[in-house]
Amino acid sequence: MIKIGIVGGTGYTGAELLRLLATHPHAQVLRITSRAEAGRQVSELYGNLRGHFNLTFSEPNEQELAECDLVFFATPNGTAMKMVPELLDAGTRVIDLAADFRLQDPELWEKWYGMPHTCTETLAEAVYGLPELNREQIRVARLVANPGCYPTASALGFLPLVEQGLVDTSTLIADCKSGVSGAGRGASVGMLMGEVGESFKAYSVPGHRHLPEIRQTLSWVSDAPVGLTFVPHLVPMIRGIHATLYARLKAEVADLQVLFEQRYADEPFVDVLPAGGHPETRSVRGVNHCRIAVHRPQGGDTVVVLSVIDNLTKGAAGQAVQNMNLMFGLAERTGLEQAALLP
Amino acid sequence: MIKIGIVGGTGYTGAELLRLLATHPHAQVLRITSRAEAGRQVSELYGNLRGHFNLTFSEPNEQELAECDLVFFATPNGTAMKMVPELLDAGTRVIDLAADFRLQDPELWEKWYGMPHTCTETLAEAVYGLPELNREQIRVARLVANPGCYPTASALGFLPLVEQGLVDTSTLIADCKSGVSGAGRGASVGMLMGEVGESFKAYSVPGHRHLPEIRQTLSWVSDAPVGLTFVPHLVPMIRGIHATLYARLKAEVADLQVLFEQRYADEPFVDVLPAGGHPETRSVRGVNHCRIAVHRPQGGDTVVVLSVIDNLTKGAAGQAVQNMNLMFGLAERTGLEQAALLP
Amino acid sequence: MIKIGIVGGTGYTGAELLRLLATHPHAQVLRITSRAEAGRQVSELYGNLRGHFNLTFSEPNEQELAECDLVFFATPNGTAMKMVPELLDAGTRVIDLAADFRLQDPELWEKWYGMPHTCTETLAEAVYGLPELNREQIRVARLVANPGCYPTASALGFLPLVEQGLVDTSTLIADCKSGVSGAGRGASVGMLMGEVGESFKAYSVPGHRHLPEIRQTLSWVSDAPVGLTFVPHLVPMIRGIHATLYARLKAEVADLQVLFEQRYADEPFVDVLPAGGHPETRSVRGVNHCRIAVHRPQGGDTVVVLSVIDNLTKGAAGQAVQNMNLMFGLAERTGLEQAALLP
Amino acid sequence: MIKIGIVGGTGYTGAELLRLLATHPHAQVLRITSRAEAGRQVSELYGNLRGHFNLTFSEPNEQELAECDLVFFATPNGTAMKMVPELLDAGTRVIDLAADFRLQDPELWEKWYGMPHTCTETLAEAVYGLPELNREQIRVARLVANPGCYPTASALGFLPLVEQGLVDTSTLIADCKSGVSGAGRGASVGMLMGEVGESFKAYSVPGHRHLPEIRQTLSWVSDAPVGLTFVPHLVPMIRGIHATLYARLKAEVADLQVLFEQRYADEPFVDVLPAGGHPETRSVRGVNHCRIAVHRPQGGDTVVVLSVIDNLTKGAAGQAVQNMNLMFGLAERTGLEQAALLP
Repeated sequence: MIKIGIVGGTGYTGAELLRLLATHPHAQVLRITSRAEAGRQVSELYGNLRGHFNLTFSEPNEQELAECDLVFFATPNGTAMKMVPELLDAGTRVIDLAADFRLQDPELWEKWYGMPHTCTETLAEAVYGLPELNREQIRVARLVANPGCYPTASALGFLPLVEQGLVDTSTLIADCKSGVSGAGRGASVGMLMGEVGESFKAYSVPGHRHLPEIRQTLSWVSDAPVGLTFVPHLVPMIRGIHATLYARLKAEVADLQVLFEQRYADEPFVDVLPAGGHPETRSVRGVNHCRIAVHRPQGGDTVVVLSVIDNLTKGAAGQAVQNMNLMFGLAERTGLEQAALLP
Repeated sequence: MIKIGIVGGTGYTGAELLRLLATHPHAQVLRITSRAEAGRQVSELYGNLRGHFNLTFSEPNEQELAECDLVFFATPNGTAMKMVPELLDAGTRVIDLAADFRLQDPELWEKWYGMPHTCTETLAEAVYGLPELNREQIRVARLVANPGCYPTASALGFLPLVEQGLVDTSTLIADCKSGVSGAGRGASVGMLMGEVGESFKAYSVPGHRHLPEIRQTLSWVSDAPVGLTFVPHLVPMIRGIHATLYARLKAEVADLQVLFEQRYADEPFVDVLPAGGHPETRSVRGVNHCRIAVHRPQGGDTVVVLSVIDNLTKGAAGQAVQNMNLMFGLAERTGLEQAALLP
Repeated sequence: MIKIGIVGGTGYTGAELLRLLATHPHAQVLRITSRAEAGRQVSELYGNLRGHFNLTFSEPNEQELAECDLVFFATPNGTAMKMVPELLDAGTRVIDLAADFRLQDPELWEKWYGMPHTCTETLAEAVYGLPELNREQIRVARLVANPGCYPTASALGFLPLVEQGLVDTSTLIADCKSGVSGAGRGASVGMLMGEVGESFKAYSVPGHRHLPEIRQTLSWVSDAPVGLTFVPHLVPMIRGIHATLYARLKAEVADLQVLFEQRYADEPFVDVLPAGGHPETRSVRGVNHCRIAVHRPQGGDTVVVLSVIDNLTKGAAGQAVQNMNLMFGLAERTGLEQAALLP
Repeated sequence: MIKIGIVGGTGYTGAELLRLLATHPHAQVLRITSRAEAGRQVSELYGNLRGHFNLTFSEPNEQELAECDLVFFATPNGTAMKMVPELLDAGTRVIDLAADFRLQDPELWEKWYGMPHTCTETLAEAVYGLPELNREQIRVARLVANPGCYPTASALGFLPLVEQGLVDTSTLIADCKSGVSGAGRGASVGMLMGEVGESFKAYSVPGHRHLPEIRQTLSWVSDAPVGLTFVPHLVPMIRGIHATLYARLKAEVADLQVLFEQRYADEPFVDVLPAGGHPETRSVRGVNHCRIAVHRPQGGDTVVVLSVIDNLTKGAAGQAVQNMNLMFGLAERTGLEQAALLP
């Protein structure tokens, strides 16, 4: 059994992690920390976990956490970087679900996250945890930076096109839509059901923190600079991300469908729909899959890729468990075999 | 492996059955029939099942079905009764998720379902599949009548009170609320999202088919006649039933909380919340649990029981799998261990 | 033009008041106060009011408010009682949409609202603003206590039965369901869409502040003591209340349908549906109507009344405008003539 | 009073028309036709209209319709073209809310709508009813083709850019999102709440009928050919369209914000938000406004326009009433003055 600690388990990412680990055959959650809820039963906060855990939130204590084989951080940005070096020194491995180790350039991090990066040495060894790109590095990593939700959906949709140099990378567009759980579980007027129910809007059009993250991933596989317009939107539903991606073909391509199918043929969690498909977010509700369709409307030069994930699963906790499985030599699908909840 | 057949698998009950069986370790779905969708891949209809089944809808064929150990009927009312006797004769066991074998009195059935019962001999041997009441009979049953969704939530909430003779059974009230998936997947104006979204209403107040079913169950354990007012309502959500049950105490009772806890102490799928609780339907989304709280507001004579289930799981397919587990000597929880999807 | 002031206009009740007054032909909003939003344009907070008001939130100032003919309080409980006496002295009339003046017994108020009533003299002259009961007193009132949302829906449904002494008033049940806007616009985890979307629950079963208010109203018209069980529930929708009311007949009644139709024959905002009807909350979305249906299921002794309102309109701001119309001698329907938004 | 007839008033467009006309001071609905519902009260079908209309659906009868001053067609595509010429001959004016007269090129119509255009002479005189483009022609038109919902939102967002020749019109992208009422009120599995609730998807990516309509409108004001990628999506809400529009700047522009504000300065129903804004669909729920914001993310060459309307109001029935007002010499805002329903 992998001994697990979770730091900051009261938000939706933490809850999803607990849900997935509840039935994982090789993981045991030893500690879960929360300053605000210290002393409270996990199942009191999350009624769905009654009967699954006999676990109490505790104050974070690095010594206790260091007894774990693996610690997940499901904390606000800027928290993990304060605790990770010590844990690594103690031989504990770490998966950070926040953004602290996602951007390799600390100056870029400071620009977008509004605070200096205080842990740049550790940053240098962090592996970006997108298994479809970095599987082998993840296996041996001590520290994995779990990707953001929009970046996961967008990168998986763009990768086949950019890796092959088929599209003009200077004019990429990612028009993304997310359910409200992506905004987390903090009290706020803006996320009240009275405010976001039965309505739809774009937000952060001038600039969103996931923009540099998507651009960084695509830059790794592109031979030309990446210019990206990223527009996130809020959908009146709880879970799910739908990325609608636009790229201009610069080279003739034999068959986009085949290109995508071959790229993901061996991926356990990327499912390319048959030609002409339109993936629904509900088809991945609660599971770690990304479902993708590729179109070339009216036979023009614009490729349209549709990519859906569950923001809390493949977009956060599910991908973290996938990374854990890789890091600990388990079959990649372990504990992630369920079918999505539909309807 | 239990060899499984499903008759009529295109509705929500069939889809839920497939979702649960997809990861059940001892069941293998051999056949799934649908006249309308014959020849079509299951995963084409239900995107969440891609990668889980390589199975095609076929025309119903009794010989092929008879090769199964167990056949589930997820058909409209009146269909199972035509096929069940022959299957039983062939040694195949049956769980009917429709209403054909729920009411023991064929005249009552005809009155409420508007057609004569053509299979009264078989009806006599059918076991009403509420494990919390009939566990031992279910183990040995050839034919199980899987309870309705409202009846499951209502019966589990009323049982402790009625069994002990604590309440006036002539004035029971079940004010029940259901998500829209309870109405099935047939095309209808009334269930369009444009019609039922962002609205709430009662329906069938003059009389609903689940009324005699609830009354029948309570009559089995009551020493006095059962008079019940049952008012179902439609909630603008997809899954979940919330039964709010009212009963007048006729005897003094030491502690209602203890009564409920003791009644369900050994039940794997009934969870009595701590005193003062208010169960949410989302706490059972996609799982086979019923969560219950009992109140006595303002210390008066009216007991209020709150009982929640997922109408498609404990209210249909999950309870059917629970019954299957009992019938085939498996641990009752097999394949039903997941935590509910929350948020 | 009636010169209007609004104290505390940043919540949903205030927003609804502004929406209705935006097109009221005889009302002009002069002042709207909010400490938190002082200096901000109303239309910045509520995008739907762009083009309708050129109005800025200001700090509350009693002298400025006293220049108005009528001041609406859309404040948290306990605020109005501090400011009302001075306004009345200055000749300004007041409609309080909070609870400060709803309960005539100050001790009862203190028990349920957890603070002493500091304004009992003024309380004595307050008129409970349910026009269907107190129309004539409202016309001449200086201070109107606008009823709560659940109490409005429940009282209108019970009134015909209780006034005629037809039912046992000791065992009344009000099983009520409300959209989330009833909880207001304050930041809270519990009202996030991630928490209340796609789920249904009861709350405050041990006791809710609207219980004594409903009981008070019914007591006014009952010749016997009123015993009431009141269970509120939260519906995953924004607007709407559905009250399902249960009462035991104690006298034989010729025709419940006629009774209800006659009771409300002259009421501009109470609509009794044809026999057998089931009102939907959407049929009153954004309008000041209450739609009611009365049933006697299976011909038994239990009467079931279904009563729907929009909690923000007839349940709050619409009823306040109706009261304003009465107080200022306008036709009762003025400014309240729109058809409900459906779908 | 303008004497009004409505052909095909049972769908959402017809219902919205009735809702708006219910309080229009200068319009009186004389006839409403529906073969399926002939003989039934309008208010029986739409509970929100109880008390507003005493009107019964009748079989369509051209003689009776010809007694009206204006007939609205809210029919499936292909119906209006059969009846319009005769009505025009009789001196009745017509607004068609279907697509029959939207595309000026009958061959294009046949290609996209799958049936020949049988009324090409009349087609030649039809005026495309976008007041912001064709106000003067609408005033004198006998036949107005009311624009589609996506085309209205998209055209209003693109117009200022395309009219001024500021963007590359060969690579325009319209990523549009619509509530479910846009699909109409016909019984279908695909629009059940169980299918579309809590999920998000794109549809018709290979080609949607609104593509040629948007292209046609932009071509009228563009000096270069228009190439457009149009991707519609379905949002789990009832009303509202959000168009996210992308265009590449080809000329330097002083100030996009000023450009948009000036273009729409005199438009009663187009509201340009302050710079940096993000319009929400709920801010136009039930009203005839289009709210627009324009962005240039990260100072790049891609302009992003956000444009929201209510698909049933400015996207259908509201725009039709606006056109009626123009055709009959009324103030353009008549009957369309309400504030949007929020929350």
